[in-house]
Amino acid sequence: MHIHIPAVGRTLEAELRRKVDRKTKPPGSLGRLEELALQLGLIQGTLSPRILAPHILVCAGDHGAAKAGVSAYPQDVTWQMVENFLAGGAAINALAHTAGVELVVADAGVAHDFGPCPNLVDAKVSASGTANYLDGPAMSTEQCAQAMANGARVARDLAVRGCNAIGFGEMGIGNTASASLLTHCLTGAPLVEVVGRGTGLDDAGLARKHALLEQALAAWPERSGEPLDVLARFGGFEIAMLAGAMLAAAEGGMVLVIDGFIVTAALLVAARLAPAILDYCVFAHRSGEPGHAVQLAHLGTRPLLDLGLRLGEGTGAALAFPLLGAACAFVNEMASFESAGVSDKS
Amino acid sequence: MHIHIPAVGRTLEAELRRKVDRKTKPPGSLGRLEELALQLGLIQGTLSPRILAPHILVCAGDHGAAKAGVSAYPQDVTWQMVENFLAGGAAINALAHTAGVELVVADAGVAHDFGPCPNLVDAKVSASGTANYLDGPAMSTEQCAQAMANGARVARDLAVRGCNAIGFGEMGIGNTASASLLTHCLTGAPLVEVVGRGTGLDDAGLARKHALLEQALAAWPERSGEPLDVLARFGGFEIAMLAGAMLAAAEGGMVLVIDGFIVTAALLVAARLAPAILDYCVFAHRSGEPGHAVQLAHLGTRPLLDLGLRLGEGTGAALAFPLLGAACAFVNEMASFESAGVSDKS
Repeated sequence: MHIHIPAVGRTLEAELRRKVDRKTKPPGSLGRLEELALQLGLIQGTLSPRILAPHILVCAGDHGAAKAGVSAYPQDVTWQMVENFLAGGAAINALAHTAGVELVVADAGVAHDFGPCPNLVDAKVSASGTANYLDGPAMSTEQCAQAMANGARVARDLAVRGCNAIGFGEMGIGNTASASLLTHCLTGAPLVEVVGRGTGLDDAGLARKHALLEQALAAWPERSGEPLDVLARFGGFEIAMLAGAMLAAAEGGMVLVIDGFIVTAALLVAARLAPAILDYCVFAHRSGEPGHAVQLAHLGTRPLLDLGLRLGEGTGAALAFPLLGAACAFVNEMASFESAGVSDKS
Repeated sequence: MHIHIPAVGRTLEAELRRKVDRKTKPPGSLGRLEELALQLGLIQGTLSPRILAPHILVCAGDHGAAKAGVSAYPQDVTWQMVENFLAGGAAINALAHTAGVELVVADAGVAHDFGPCPNLVDAKVSASGTANYLDGPAMSTEQCAQAMANGARVARDLAVRGCNAIGFGEMGIGNTASASLLTHCLTGAPLVEVVGRGTGLDDAGLARKHALLEQALAAWPERSGEPLDVLARFGGFEIAMLAGAMLAAAEGGMVLVIDGFIVTAALLVAARLAPAILDYCVFAHRSGEPGHAVQLAHLGTRPLLDLGLRLGEGTGAALAFPLLGAACAFVNEMASFESAGVSDKS
């Protein structure tokens, strides 16, 4: 994937700040909504940012390591939840719907034959999910590149359809384990700090997961620090697809709404390949999964929401979209002190 | 005002929890959205809570103490901002609009003649705002009762119009000073911990405000701890109107969405009169005004958002409404493990 992501230009910054500060409110009194408006204006290169045709892209994939017992749920839940997305019954359906955000579901490599399915983006790299990273690389270099290219294609398709903001979500039994390994390798944080209960492991399950992930690291003695090597070794197809989609979205000047732990793991890969991608990212929420705090600290960012969510699917991103809308609304709709005839500070 | 607010019944609690837990997601994984759904269901006495015809009620009033210099802005800004609300140019207009919430603006006692104004609720208790509490009570007992009754009337009118959730907001130059005094008197927190910069005082202005408020306390040596006495002594007409509106809204079984420092000061009064009102309150956000944290700790609650807002007008409440909508949406729209055919935990 050849990607060129320029840093967001700052030429409009002073003018945007002036516009925000002349609104009929004490300067700074809309807090982080003001920072958000500024960021959206800079990304879009306009004094009047707008969120157009927003989408959430949920990528799903299966993990070979799931069979080793890294999750509280059986692997079949991945495809069953994809069917649930398509039927409109999952959390992300409800939350995207109420936020006025369209949902796109992609099969990045689920170990299931969905048959003809017009609402599912077919981006299947392998019909059996990734290989088990306890035994070798989760995917080949070619598969990894293919998954990333698939993600890029979907993001570009959305841009063609008028979308300028994508929230990212995922589904894949075992993918917090994968995200833990990626986060450990790409941030240097101790494994124990980035392994969590995922969908709800008990203490014994958490200890087993941690031991398996230590084993996974030990099984790769020639360990590389290159992001694509790490992604191929430990990633999921859905994570690789997300990384590719993010890179293409940022290249296209879109706003990236980053969900929780697994999506941020994909971003860690993307940001190592193209650090300027972070200029385009709005961090939706702080997940209850403990490794997410480590990722956010590593990226030096603070998310908008902190509601103890740990569901994935892009649910945190869906909840953040109204805040993006609110940031645009105040910049575009509010009067200035001058236009409203309101007296300024004494 | 004769108000009877029953504690919210908990008979449905177990069934609501079961409904939430059978949704296709790991138990607890929607974090605070699950607690919120439970609270809304209990308030409404249903397994399918809904937010219907939501409104934000902004009450405006002038403060006699404003002339003593407790605010960074001149007193005329109160009426100018009311005109701005009516013209649609304020922050709350933009944020309510984007959240799909209707705005109701009430003149609780602004020192200005608005002339014939069909969109402004005329609830003016005095044409000159409150008296200066540095010299005596801000309002008489009768005026206080009148303002509260006016608030109750508006809340009941909204209920008749099918509204089951009200966000509360305010406008009044000098009203953070008033809220500081109320909070000090009703929580016992040291004055210095509950006095802040309001709309943006500098260090000298903050010191002057603190000294004036010490003076205001000293000018009431026979100080009573009764909430209505405190309200009449230091309150604003908009604060009394809000307290009355909140009491009537809770009595009517509505959801109360509590904004920031001034609105919570009104709630402190209401909660002393009818403690069960707290069952009906959703705390929208943590304000940047430092006294708000003291109020929230006193009430033993934690708000949904923390975005550094310190604008008032109900802006934090407006931003929280989509979260209420999301809580209802997941409860009402999501499939269960059984209905979706998704496998449960191994």
